[in-house]
This record gives sequence, C-alpha cells and structure tokens, in this order.
Amino acid sequence: MEKNDIIYAPATVAGTGAISIIRISGDGCLELSDRLIHLKKGLLSQAEGYSLHFGSIYSGEELLDEVLVSVFRAPRSYTGEDSVEISCHSSSYIVSEILHLLSELGGRLASPGEFTQRAFLNGKMDLAQAEAVAELIAADSKAAHRVASKQLKGEYSQTFRELRDKLQELAALLELELDFSEEEVEFADRGKLKELAYNEIERLKRLCGSFRLGNALKNGVPVAIVGAPNVGKSTLLNALLGQERAIVSEIAGTTRDTVEESIVIEGVRYRFIDTAGLRQTEEVVEKMGIERSLEAVSAAQIVIALLEDGASEENDSIRREILSRMDLGVQKIIWVYNKSDLHRNTESKGLRISALEKENLEGLLQAIKDCALASEVENDTIVCSERHYAALKQALESMERLYRSLDLQISEDLLAQDLREAIASLNSIFASVSERITSDSVLGEVFGRFCIGK
Amino acid sequence: MEKNDIIYAPATVAGTGAISIIRISGDGCLELSDRLIHLKKGLLSQAEGYSLHFGSIYSGEELLDEVLVSVFRAPRSYTGEDSVEISCHSSSYIVSEILHLLSELGGRLASPGEFTQRAFLNGKMDLAQAEAVAELIAADSKAAHRVASKQLKGEYSQTFRELRDKLQELAALLELELDFSEEEVEFADRGKLKELAYNEIERLKRLCGSFRLGNALKNGVPVAIVGAPNVGKSTLLNALLGQERAIVSEIAGTTRDTVEESIVIEGVRYRFIDTAGLRQTEEVVEKMGIERSLEAVSAAQIVIALLEDGASEENDSIRREILSRMDLGVQKIIWVYNKSDLHRNTESKGLRISALEKENLEGLLQAIKDCALASEVENDTIVCSERHYAALKQALESMERLYRSLDLQISEDLLAQDLREAIASLNSIFASVSERITSDSVLGEVFGRFCIGK
Repeated sequence: MEKNDIIYAPATVAGTGAISIIRISGDGCLELSDRLIHLKKGLLSQAEGYSLHFGSIYSGEELLDEVLVSVFRAPRSYTGEDSVEISCHSSSYIVSEILHLLSELGGRLASPGEFTQRAFLNGKMDLAQAEAVAELIAADSKAAHRVASKQLKGEYSQTFRELRDKLQELAALLELELDFSEEEVEFADRGKLKELAYNEIERLKRLCGSFRLGNALKNGVPVAIVGAPNVGKSTLLNALLGQERAIVSEIAGTTRDTVEESIVIEGVRYRFIDTAGLRQTEEVVEKMGIERSLEAVSAAQIVIALLEDGASEENDSIRREILSRMDLGVQKIIWVYNKSDLHRNTESKGLRISALEKENLEGLLQAIKDCALASEVENDTIVCSERHYAALKQALESMERLYRSLDLQISEDLLAQDLREAIASLNSIFASVSERITSDSVLGEVFGRFCIGK
Repeated sequence: MEKNDIIYAPATVAGTGAISIIRISGDGCLELSDRLIHLKKGLLSQAEGYSLHFGSIYSGEELLDEVLVSVFRAPRSYTGEDSVEISCHSSSYIVSEILHLLSELGGRLASPGEFTQRAFLNGKMDLAQAEAVAELIAADSKAAHRVASKQLKGEYSQTFRELRDKLQELAALLELELDFSEEEVEFADRGKLKELAYNEIERLKRLCGSFRLGNALKNGVPVAIVGAPNVGKSTLLNALLGQERAIVSEIAGTTRDTVEESIVIEGVRYRFIDTAGLRQTEEVVEKMGIERSLEAVSAAQIVIALLEDGASEENDSIRREILSRMDLGVQKIIWVYNKSDLHRNTESKGLRISALEKENLEGLLQAIKDCALASEVENDTIVCSERHYAALKQALESMERLYRSLDLQISEDLLAQDLREAIASLNSIFASVSERITSDSVLGEVFGRFCIGK
C-alpha cells in the first residue's frame, strides 16, 4: 500500500437500495473528482471542507447519473486526508461504471480497511480505536454496541495506557536500583517492586478474565441447557424462543447434535444451546452426543441445569457430572426444576418451571439476565478482541516471570528485559502511530479483517 | 398517506458496509432532527440548504453514534420539502435504534416509493420520470440504463406530450367542424382529420411495437437456441457463456426443461435459452419439452436456428417448424451451421461455426449484436413499462375506432368521445401533478413497486 495515493471504494452494501455511496481519499482527489463530476458552477477543488454539491457524471458523451458530492478537507475528514463522498443512484451498473471511471482517472481500488488504516496513519485514532470501527459496524446488540463504542471513544485504550505507565514506573524504579546497586539499597526496593508488580499482575488477570465475557457480549452469551434425557430441554429451548426450532419428541436421545438458537433479550444476545441428554449409555453415537453436551457445559457462560423434581438419585449424579466440567469462578449455573405442573408438592431448592405449560419462564429469564449483568457490572473494561487477549496474556506471562525472578538473585538486566516485553505487549494493543511501535504485520492483521470501503 | 408529515426510512441496503444512510423528509423535519442529533454548535433548523454537519446521536444517556448530516431546504431537495440525510456507521443495531428514535420523536416510516411520490406531488418530476427512478436503480446493463436515463431526463415524456398535443389539435378541428356543420364544410375537414388520425395511429403503432424491445433491454434480450437433437445446442450455450452451465451429453433429449443463462455483451444483457431438440417423437415428456422449445421460439427476440451441415432433409423440416412460430416483422433469426470442424466442404448459406472447437463464435456474437442494435437504432423512444404499454394500446384502440368512424356518418359527439379517451390514456403515462389528472389508484400502482427509502 502506498501512502497518500488516491484510493476509492463503494462504502455501502451492493443491492437494491435507493442510494449508494462511493468514497475517495488521498492527495489530489479533489482535482481527480473535478474530472469525473461536472458541477453547474465552480470546482470541487476550490470548494470548502464540509460542503455539499450537486453534479453530473458522464460516461463518454452520455449522462451516467446526477449525484450529490460531499467534500472534506484535510485534516477534517475520516482519513485525515482530502476526501470526497459521492452519493449516486444505487444501480449496480452506475456504481460499477463510476468505479471504472475512477480507475481510468488514476485512482486505485482501496484494500479492505484502508480508509481506517489511513485514519490511523494520520493520527486520527489509535490502533484499538481503529479496530473498534469494525466492531461497531458488526455490533448487532446493545451490549456489543456499548463495548465497541467505549473502545472507539478511547476509554478502552486509556485503561491499557495507565497499565503501561505503571509498568514504566516499575522500569524506572528498576533502573534506580541498577544505579544504586553498589550501595546495597537493593532489598528495600525489591519489596516495593514486588508490591507494584503484584498489583499490575492482578489487573492483567482481571482484564484477561474479561475476555470470556467480552467474547460473549460480542458473539452472544452462550447458555447451555443440560440435563437428563426427557427432562424437557428441547421443550424449554422452544418455549424460550417462542417458536418450534428444536425437534421435540418423547424418544430419549432425540437431540444428538447440539442445537443452537440466538435471541436478543434487553440488548444482550444469548446463544441458547440445546444438548443431548446426560445418562449412562453404551450406544456409541449417543455417547458422542453426551460428550458434546459436556463440552458445551465447559464452553458456556451460563449453564441451565435442568432437573426433574423428585428424581433425586439421578439428579445427584447429573449434578456431579455438570459441576465437574465447570469453573464456577467465571461460569454461572442456574439450577432449574422442570415439570412443576406434575410435581406440585416437592420442595427442591432452585427455580421451578414448567417448560411445557410455560410456567415461570419469566423467572428463568430474569435469572439468566442477572447472571449476565452480574459479570458485566464487575468489569469496567471488557476485552473482546482475540488480538488484545493474546497481547494481554503475553504481558501477564512476562510479568509473572518478573515476579518470580524478584525472589531469586537474578540480574536486573534480565528483569528489565521482562518488563520491556510486557510494555511492548501492552503497547501493541492501543499504540498510536506517533509512538512508531506498530509493525506492518500487526497493521495487516488488524485492517485485513475490515470490509472494503471502511 | 398524509401530505407533508415527517417520513423517514433507510436509503441504503442493510448488511455489512461502511456507511448507512437514513433519509428524513417533511415539514418540521429539521426541528425534529435537532432533537435527535446534537451538533457541536448551532442547530440544523438554522442551517442553510446544501450544508453538511458533524453531530452525535444519543440513545438515553449513551452515545449511539457520531454521524454526518446533510441538510436540504425546500424546494431544493429530492422531495421538494425540507429534508435531512443522516450518514451513520452501517451497524444493524445503530440503524434500528435511529429508526426507533425517529419514530419516538413523531416521524413515520415511509411507504415504498413515498419520497419519490412526494417529489412527484411537489412538481419535481412527472409520472414517467418518477417511474424512471425505479428503473434506473434496477438497471444492470448499459442498455437498460440508457432507456431509464432518457426517461428520467424527460425526453421520453416529451414524445408522448407531442403526441397528445397532436390529438388535441385534432380535437380542436373536430370542434370546428361541429361549429360549422350547418354550413356543410364537413367533408373537406374529414379528409384532413383522417390524414392527421392516420399519422398518429402509425406513431402509436411504432411506440407499441417498441415494447418488445424495451422489455428485452430492461430484462435482457431473449435469445433462443433451437435445432435438432445432438446438433450441439447445449455445447453452444456453454461455449457462449464460457462455462459449464448446461448438462452436455450425447443422449438425444438430454435438455428437457429449457435452460437459461444471461450475460452482458457490450452493455446489452442477453438471456440465452437452451431448448429441447426438435424431432418427431411419441415420448410424452419429450413432446412436452419440444412444445416448450417452440414456445421459446415465439417468445424470443432473436432465434439462433442451429442446423447440422449436410443434414439437408431434416434441416428443411426444422426450418419450417421454427419459421411457423415466428413473426419476422419483429423477431430476428440467425441461421447457424454447427460442426464446421466435421464438414469442411459443404456450402450451406448462413454462419458456419464449431461450438465444440469454439470456431467462429465471434462471428455469431457479432450477428447477435447486429440483430439487437438494428432494432435499437430504429426506435428513438423505447417503451419498457407494462403500464405505459397498456395505456398506449388503449389510446391506439380509441384512435382506430375514431378512424373507422370517420368514414361512417357518425355524430361528432361520439368521435370527440374517442379522442378524449385517447388523450386521457396518453396523459396517464407522463402526467405531471399540475395537470391534476392522476388518480390515486395510478399513484398506488406506480409507487407501490418502489423499494422503501426511495
């Protein structure tokens, strides 16, 4: 990718809408646009930034379309460069002709994410903010939108910048120790170093821990419905979805593959996963289904353990099996007794519902929402990017290595090396272009995931 | 539909693009937008027309998105009313939230085509031009685009306006005759009336005749490939498409249903229709396939009659069968001898190709293009709307009735009635709102076909 050459791309989805937008950016793009678009009077290259114009585009002698043109002047544009947005009739022929004309006039079709990459390279946003643009576009629930929005506004980057600053403080202390090592002030400082490092390790751990939730908010909170055969798991899924998605039958073992459906409840997307019933079996295919159910338990954010009232012995073994696959530090479990319409007199602890009669589904939905909200409130900064999670884990590893080394008589040089690595990992999350620390491969990884035109 | 209340709709296709546009129009829409969008300074309701602004939209306390806003002032807008276009991030959550907020602020989701209907009602365009907006958006080839473009610019309406003016002249003459009928100047005027009516009938016929072509340009020129079994029709279709679309085999009767594929050649879309082989057969299913082939011949704009070199007797009967189903006044036929690689020495008249060896396919493509162009050049105004075609046929019928009546001693009142009907039919094609002749049912028919947001 060259810097500042003129790039163009459609910025709206192809298809039968009313309007299509084509975006152009780069040095000289206003002069190029003057050769494409004829205004009634004046020239785009003489227009002010943030101005709107009506013009005509010709293909040869023939009028191709009448268009609206928005002019942006550097640095007050998305990319930070001179930019133009053409609003034309949304016909596939017109759009492809305009793109063709732009190519003939010397423009180049933009790579995916290249407009945002230029915004980054021109210092309009840091790397985490640039990534948030793609997250914001993909957001399809309030929760996912909120996470992306915070990241776009820079609050997210701020968390990591503060963490990085703390580590730099640590590095300064370490240097001080290096300078004074001959005067034997070493031990007092080691104590302070350890305390500081411990605090930052705890923060890194919390941030790493938020990734499970962040990922859930982005892609939907996975809720596994598990229990014995015939306890009513598929009936419950259908009741929750308000539609007949899963095949419901009375033959034990009907659901062999996991069935998944997602709905948005009060702004949060939940992915409900119906699973094969848990029981002792020698049937090979069913065994595989049961193993998949238990994997779903491990992967879920929330587990709905569906039990039948009164079946206490069977329930005990299922309880044990489910709990053996869960990490209750990060996962939530809701114990639910189904078929409340059949067992009016038992007094099991937990939520009592009837999936078939749709009794107390509101109670269950409330419990689900409480589980999701509880974890959300606990975390201010929620990591939802795989890339950021990987960087955080690296930073955590470096810091833990440092922490262990502080107790040993290891040279300060090696300690400093661990710190530098942790700082570099954090920088790679939010680095702005002025810090000159972002490699081409990171840029490729970040912007390669964008759609064309963004 | 109320007049001038505030309507809104997404104007871009839903999906993962960079930008989505939401359009708002109607009296007070700038004040409404001020309650939705917060500018850094100033108000949209105080902004000039054709101005561009950067603003923020909040959902409750939370920032929903930062947007670009274009302001248009009546009458310099698409609808002719005060209008606003919001350019936001193309996330399904953001778009649906903005639509929701607009509804809460008192706007109403626009019906399909309602923005264009308002443009019509505010005198920005006549009815044929309004229809051309939808045609332009749907245009996916240069030819379809050209037809829609002419219609949008008003050249098309002009043709019908002139024709209508001629009929009004005729009506004036007829009135003159009525006034002077007691003075017995009747016969001389009848002659002039007849001449004028004849000319207009011929013009109406030509316009009606252009509909087959107009429809072909809009939806693709239908080209039927017909001939005996195994003469290589499917091989030819595949060769033309440059890909393996039709199933090619050596068993006679492989192609039972017609197979259709369309490609754009030099700006014109062609729909190639591969058909079942023509031969005498008693097999019921094959007979049905053959009947469908002959129907394809009748419906095609261009027929490629594929014959095998040397098979003269069989070819004669196929020639007769094809010609019996064609109207050579409006349809074109190209005689093509296939398997030129096998029959180097025969001297049949017509184009010689080898579909298998891809010999002389350029010659065939040229012949196809000549056929399509020949008809296009002959017609200045091309009718491609079903609605206009129906109106023209009605006008033609009225005029032919008038013409026949001129020879009979029929009262001028009845003649005038025919003329009025013909004029009304023509008016219904291009009427502008100022002429106050468009009924609600016509408006419903025209704008009901639009997409939402246009």
